Amino acid sequence: MQLKAIVDYLKEAGIAVEVRGTDTVEINQVASLVNATKGNISFLSDKKRLHELKSTQASVVISHASHAEYCQQTCLIVDNPYYVYAKVAQFLNPEPEFKPGIHDSAIVSSTASLGKNVSIHANVVIEDGVKIGDDTVIMAGSYLGKDVTIGMHCRIAPNVVIMHACKIGNYTAIESGAVIGGDGFGWANYRGQWVKIPQIGKVVIGDHVSIGNNTTVDRGAIEDTVIADNSIIDNLVQIGHNVQLGEGTAIAGQAGFAGSTIIGKHCTIAGQAGFAGHISIADGTHIMAKAGVTHSLNEPGVYAGFPAIAAGEWQKNSVRARQLDKIAKKIKSLEDELKLLKENSPN
Amino acid sequence: MQLKAIVDYLKEAGIAVEVRGTDTVEINQVASLVNATKGNISFLSDKKRLHELKSTQASVVISHASHAEYCQQTCLIVDNPYYVYAKVAQFLNPEPEFKPGIHDSAIVSSTASLGKNVSIHANVVIEDGVKIGDDTVIMAGSYLGKDVTIGMHCRIAPNVVIMHACKIGNYTAIESGAVIGGDGFGWANYRGQWVKIPQIGKVVIGDHVSIGNNTTVDRGAIEDTVIADNSIIDNLVQIGHNVQLGEGTAIAGQAGFAGSTIIGKHCTIAGQAGFAGHISIADGTHIMAKAGVTHSLNEPGVYAGFPAIAAGEWQKNSVRARQLDKIAKKIKSLEDELKLLKENSPN
Amino acid sequence: MQLKAIVDYLKEAGIAVEVRGTDTVEINQVASLVNATKGNISFLSDKKRLHELKSTQASVVISHASHAEYCQQTCLIVDNPYYVYAKVAQFLNPEPEFKPGIHDSAIVSSTASLGKNVSIHANVVIEDGVKIGDDTVIMAGSYLGKDVTIGMHCRIAPNVVIMHACKIGNYTAIESGAVIGGDGFGWANYRGQWVKIPQIGKVVIGDHVSIGNNTTVDRGAIEDTVIADNSIIDNLVQIGHNVQLGEGTAIAGQAGFAGSTIIGKHCTIAGQAGFAGHISIADGTHIMAKAGVTHSLNEPGVYAGFPAIAAGEWQKNSVRARQLDKIAKKIKSLEDELKLLKENSPN
Repeated sequence: MQLKAIVDYLKEAGIAVEVRGTDTVEINQVASLVNATKGNISFLSDKKRLHELKSTQASVVISHASHAEYCQQTCLIVDNPYYVYAKVAQFLNPEPEFKPGIHDSAIVSSTASLGKNVSIHANVVIEDGVKIGDDTVIMAGSYLGKDVTIGMHCRIAPNVVIMHACKIGNYTAIESGAVIGGDGFGWANYRGQWVKIPQIGKVVIGDHVSIGNNTTVDRGAIEDTVIADNSIIDNLVQIGHNVQLGEGTAIAGQAGFAGSTIIGKHCTIAGQAGFAGHISIADGTHIMAKAGVTHSLNEPGVYAGFPAIAAGEWQKNSVRARQLDKIAKKIKSLEDELKLLKENSPN
Repeated sequence: MQLKAIVDYLKEAGIAVEVRGTDTVEINQVASLVNATKGNISFLSDKKRLHELKSTQASVVISHASHAEYCQQTCLIVDNPYYVYAKVAQFLNPEPEFKPGIHDSAIVSSTASLGKNVSIHANVVIEDGVKIGDDTVIMAGSYLGKDVTIGMHCRIAPNVVIMHACKIGNYTAIESGAVIGGDGFGWANYRGQWVKIPQIGKVVIGDHVSIGNNTTVDRGAIEDTVIADNSIIDNLVQIGHNVQLGEGTAIAGQAGFAGSTIIGKHCTIAGQAGFAGHISIADGTHIMAKAGVTHSLNEPGVYAGFPAIAAGEWQKNSVRARQLDKIAKKIKSLEDELKLLKENSPN
Repeated sequence: MQLKAIVDYLKEAGIAVEVRGTDTVEINQVASLVNATKGNISFLSDKKRLHELKSTQASVVISHASHAEYCQQTCLIVDNPYYVYAKVAQFLNPEPEFKPGIHDSAIVSSTASLGKNVSIHANVVIEDGVKIGDDTVIMAGSYLGKDVTIGMHCRIAPNVVIMHACKIGNYTAIESGAVIGGDGFGWANYRGQWVKIPQIGKVVIGDHVSIGNNTTVDRGAIEDTVIADNSIIDNLVQIGHNVQLGEGTAIAGQAGFAGSTIIGKHCTIAGQAGFAGHISIADGTHIMAKAGVTHSLNEPGVYAGFPAIAAGEWQKNSVRARQLDKIAKKIKSLEDELKLLKENSPN
């Protein structure tokens, strides 16, 4: 298509965009600056890639005004190039449409209630009382337990398990192999035996949420585990029972949350971070990779380390930690000098 | 039901319980102290929640004698409130009963042998030679490989994989997406090529075990991987080949065990902890979150850090680690003072 | 079979082997030195197990010439005992043969193209345009998305998901529950909302690769995620979008790789290690368990810690870290002595 079609789409979406160059150039796909060829549209969102901009073969580049002077080609000037790139990539790569209907091999309870244009794929199992909203797709091999509710325009990828009574909002995606509403890890110890505590809560997931591949979100012990709107969770993340995750929070791969922890809104949690149970994290907090958060963090900020502290402090200590052997040797030499001084001291 | 029915159940289970108040109060469900309303039974197992006890709306509270004076309502006095809560929750929330029988869509080998009241759900695949004990349920989409043996009263959740020849005891639950008996990570390197070592052992799991969602337990390389009775394992845990897990041991989410490690009885392993291979851990050991255990631990105790050491030591060092930058600066100032002293020294 | 048959097999495979003793001894299975009984063949690959060699009941031991003198029984003298053990174990335990053909319950698109002797098991779902090479087996409940290509002699274990357009080479195994080609974690933040970046790359996996149980390999954001030939990946590993993994690299359980990271050839990555995105690691690098690699490592070597540094340095600092409390106390006492000296100083 011509660039013009893309620009029209962006403007309709309310995005301010200025075209420097010709809007009749043909565009077929997005590409990175380095690998772009004729017909590609690329973007510059990070100053560090400025040298890539100078040599790119892309036909069009999306750029902030401050870097536009380096564009050799047609340039879309926007405030937030990465966001605009996302929108352009969506426009050029619409989600696949799935044929509405129920595959012959799917097993759907007669008491389930399905909206319009729902697409149920091969070998899906849908138990009694399930409700599915319009335009939602359930891909092959997924399991929806008794009384599960899923909203509109959701995509449940293959081989997902959603256990009984869990509720999922609209425009939410659950990626392959994820388990929603498995029993939480609740046990009482009695004379060396583990006695199971029935997990009678459920999982409630909001709108525009994404849950990653093979991630596990446990159902609540008594009350519910809650994942608020617009939060995004990467692969292999463990969310314990009764965790509450705030709106717009992002969690990277292999992070883990023990039970009953409350994470604020618009937090970002990096990979392999871990959280103790029964703590609470302020809105807008950023936790660095591999951090271990053992106490509540009431002030927003950047935290790192284990136990997690302010990232600036951690950074300074971390530099020193790499000098520890030298520090220990320095102390030894101080001790020696001091001993000598004392021996030679007149007193 | 009336509280009396609950008390009778507890007494039949051999639990000493004293009712302070009336045992005719109507009870419908368990609840937390904070969220309980009329008709709920709650519990106090942690002194830190005493303030919640004072304001709870629960109709009945399960409490230790030492806190009973704070109960405004009917109180069940017991020795171990959390355990009794577990039993009451089980009584009020019995596990769902599954209709015995084999779903039309299940694929069950003619050489499989099924006990009484077995419930095989939709799309389950059962290979040749599988044996399943009485009252066991295999939920939708699970796979039981050739010659797998499962005991009585087990629950295999949806989309579980149990590979050939593995043996599972009685009253054991395998949660969704878990993989039991996948090939262990055994490879010989020959001139840069990885040559696979056939994994000819199996996995043997005892009675009253629970394996979490998406957890993986590898089959043995030569001998078996063994998970003893009454052990409980959370989600996304990795158990390498030939690991031996002692009775009554509990393992939290995302912990990992390299091959051939032996974990004692009644250990508790916190989240994201990791264990080197070929080591052995004493009975009754507690490993803190994110610890990395690199050597055998022959004495029971609490261990933390990486490499893991006695938790008390780790705690002290960990406090100092957060002062490292200050420590380094202190040394610098000691050096300066010492230099000055030496310059001014009469010798 | 007689040992002679094994020796003939090894020689045909081009392996130099000298028999000390009789080659007519009957062999039925491999075993560890400790557990071997009559009829077993075992191996010594680690000097630390020399004491086990002395008392083993194995009928034959595979050993390096330097330890042959300790063998009481027939001995196969070879250069690389562990490798030869792997070959012998493979010979005695051939992979199970699966009957070629498509199970009645499998759902295979009419536009899929299957090679000779392909074995498609129960409840497999194969979408349009899939291509599968000769002698490949797809086990129960696995899902192959649109236009997936799989080479010859592959084994796809049960309940695996391979999303659309991904390409897998020959002689590759994908273990149970793995997800190949799930969407990567690509999001632009716009005024607090996460906007999804379509993941239009795929996953390309080479020959002789092994992907572990419940491991996730994300598809590329724009270009592809690439796993080169002969690399082996353990369970519960997370491989982010656009990661490139070099030939012959081995990755242990629960390691994680953020997006666009490039790992060299013949690296070994230990368990629970984590890698930042957009970095690159030299060929032949070894990363120790739980390390956090935050910067590119341009020199091969052994690295450990977080942030990862040369393992020797880390080791020294790590010893000191366990003395930190003592170090801090030493400084206090130095300060006190110095103060005293100054007070007593003549100046």
